[in-house]
Amino acid sequence: MIRIALDALGGDFGANPNVRGALQAARRLGVEIILVGDEKIIRQELANLGHSTLPKHISIVHAPNVIDMGAEPAKEVRTKKDASIVVCAELVHKGAADAFVSAGHSGAAMVAALFGLGRIKGVLRPAIASPMPTYQGVSLLLDAGANADCKPIHLLQFAVMGSTYMQKVFDIEKPKVGVLSIGEEETKGNYLVKHTVPHMREIGVNFTGTVEGRDVNTGDTDVIVCDGFVGNIVLKMAEGLAKIMIRMIKREVKKRPLAICGALLSKGAFSAVKKHTNPDNYGGAPLVGVNGVAIIAHGKSNEVAIFNALKTASKLVKKNFIGDVADKIASLQGVFAKIEAAEAAGE
Amino acid sequence: MIRIALDALGGDFGANPNVRGALQAARRLGVEIILVGDEKIIRQELANLGHSTLPKHISIVHAPNVIDMGAEPAKEVRTKKDASIVVCAELVHKGAADAFVSAGHSGAAMVAALFGLGRIKGVLRPAIASPMPTYQGVSLLLDAGANADCKPIHLLQFAVMGSTYMQKVFDIEKPKVGVLSIGEEETKGNYLVKHTVPHMREIGVNFTGTVEGRDVNTGDTDVIVCDGFVGNIVLKMAEGLAKIMIRMIKREVKKRPLAICGALLSKGAFSAVKKHTNPDNYGGAPLVGVNGVAIIAHGKSNEVAIFNALKTASKLVKKNFIGDVADKIASLQGVFAKIEAAEAAGE
Repeated sequence: MIRIALDALGGDFGANPNVRGALQAARRLGVEIILVGDEKIIRQELANLGHSTLPKHISIVHAPNVIDMGAEPAKEVRTKKDASIVVCAELVHKGAADAFVSAGHSGAAMVAALFGLGRIKGVLRPAIASPMPTYQGVSLLLDAGANADCKPIHLLQFAVMGSTYMQKVFDIEKPKVGVLSIGEEETKGNYLVKHTVPHMREIGVNFTGTVEGRDVNTGDTDVIVCDGFVGNIVLKMAEGLAKIMIRMIKREVKKRPLAICGALLSKGAFSAVKKHTNPDNYGGAPLVGVNGVAIIAHGKSNEVAIFNALKTASKLVKKNFIGDVADKIASLQGVFAKIEAAEAAGE
Repeated sequence: MIRIALDALGGDFGANPNVRGALQAARRLGVEIILVGDEKIIRQELANLGHSTLPKHISIVHAPNVIDMGAEPAKEVRTKKDASIVVCAELVHKGAADAFVSAGHSGAAMVAALFGLGRIKGVLRPAIASPMPTYQGVSLLLDAGANADCKPIHLLQFAVMGSTYMQKVFDIEKPKVGVLSIGEEETKGNYLVKHTVPHMREIGVNFTGTVEGRDVNTGDTDVIVCDGFVGNIVLKMAEGLAKIMIRMIKREVKKRPLAICGALLSKGAFSAVKKHTNPDNYGGAPLVGVNGVAIIAHGKSNEVAIFNALKTASKLVKKNFIGDVADKIASLQGVFAKIEAAEAAGE
């Protein structure tokens, strides 16, 4: 049985959504959930939800400490061995869990995963891969913020890992992979993109060209590769702008009595759009490249979001995501070495 | 009287919106518009609009050639001396016009302005500054695409020029200036941002901190500074996502008969949002840092957009934008030199 460690107090809403999501996952997915965090708080939450004893397929690992959100993640992770996120990574590292999920501080989760699990052999920079709602469904954007400055070789590895992820989790046989850039011509872009694109056809992914800003949310490309600076801005901007558009519409509706009636009648349509663009439904953001399955859920995750993140984690374990990425990266070592040498010579 | 050269055939819709916008500007703004392009086509368009002779404050400069959109802009500009955009820049250079406006190829306009007008003394890299609709009004984003790779000194100069622009055109006394980054802490970001932010308080602008992706469209910051790669992606993504949101809402509305009625009743509210987010209303994107007033209008500009771009151009001339930027850049030469030296030493 697949065992998933869950940072039980991670996220903005404490134990409640985590424990509820865990209960649902244990019941519906046939996996074991290890709730990691302050045991007393977890037991209290379970009791509140009607469970005076531990439910089937639920266990607890006591981890009394928490990461200080305001402090430097690397220092926090190094000094707090009994922080829940550190214990989660440790459980995976020593084989007591097959994966971990956390809705806590994403920087701390990244560092805990890196320190606790290390990197897959040959991977230079693990990345945060973020599923992003689009017109047609969902695209994977990576890196979404782990590496602010990248080299071409990093982007090429992101492409390989992101493509594998979309195969495993979204069952897309040949995910379309694009590089985020300016202008459609492959000769345009910044230094990083110009030095990445020429190698995109050497790494065995279905490279379909560069992707302009206006096409980020169409869903035409399954995997969009960029550095973590651009990726983080794009991701947060998409979230922010969608909210601002809704606020603008509401503001204008409120000025018009007829429109208020109209808005009431169209409510179902708006709810559908809201649901479709809700990141909760897309199963959290995996840390790809670390040597173990690790998923970061949104800080504002509710029960559904936690359940979906746990489901994605279980899928990745079942489908041997880590093993497959390791194999692909290993088989590309020669190609990567050649590209790195050429880049180093050209600099 | 202020004289503005207009690339009369620039943009996706040919002479019509340009000539109409010019007629409106000549009538309402008390400026002279020089229509630059194929004289026969321009005269035909004027005739179609009921002017068999040249209207008051409208003149024509014949420029029979056009830039090939598919070709390399620098080469096109260098070889086609009689292309309308090249003639526009030349008119400003020789003092026959005070400013130019073009809705043609923005890359070609940038190159024509650079070749024809040169840079303001001390400006290292001219930028495209793009007004961007926000929840509260409009923010200026620069660079929006002229310089894919930038150094800190470039971003600092963009901040000075963008701030001056918002003072002149939007009458904001102390524009709030931010640097686009990831995370709110000033210590976060990529190499470029980390080396730019520490100097932001040395250049006499009202620096209010870094701006995250989610806050790009709130309107809390008047001037958002970034490199042209990130800026172009952000700008195009904002345009694209707004359209996609509307398409998503329409798709869901169509599935629900009640919602269709509701949408009809709320139509006014949607039109208001559409109008508010329409870049046509914000007067085009100035090329800041070139030694003359040059404005790029959207390729899809209609009469209103052209009129507004001409209005902005006239405002910039009237308020001595070029002179003021030149003075500020000159007064900061010592500061810039020190920053550049420090950066060079640190590299």
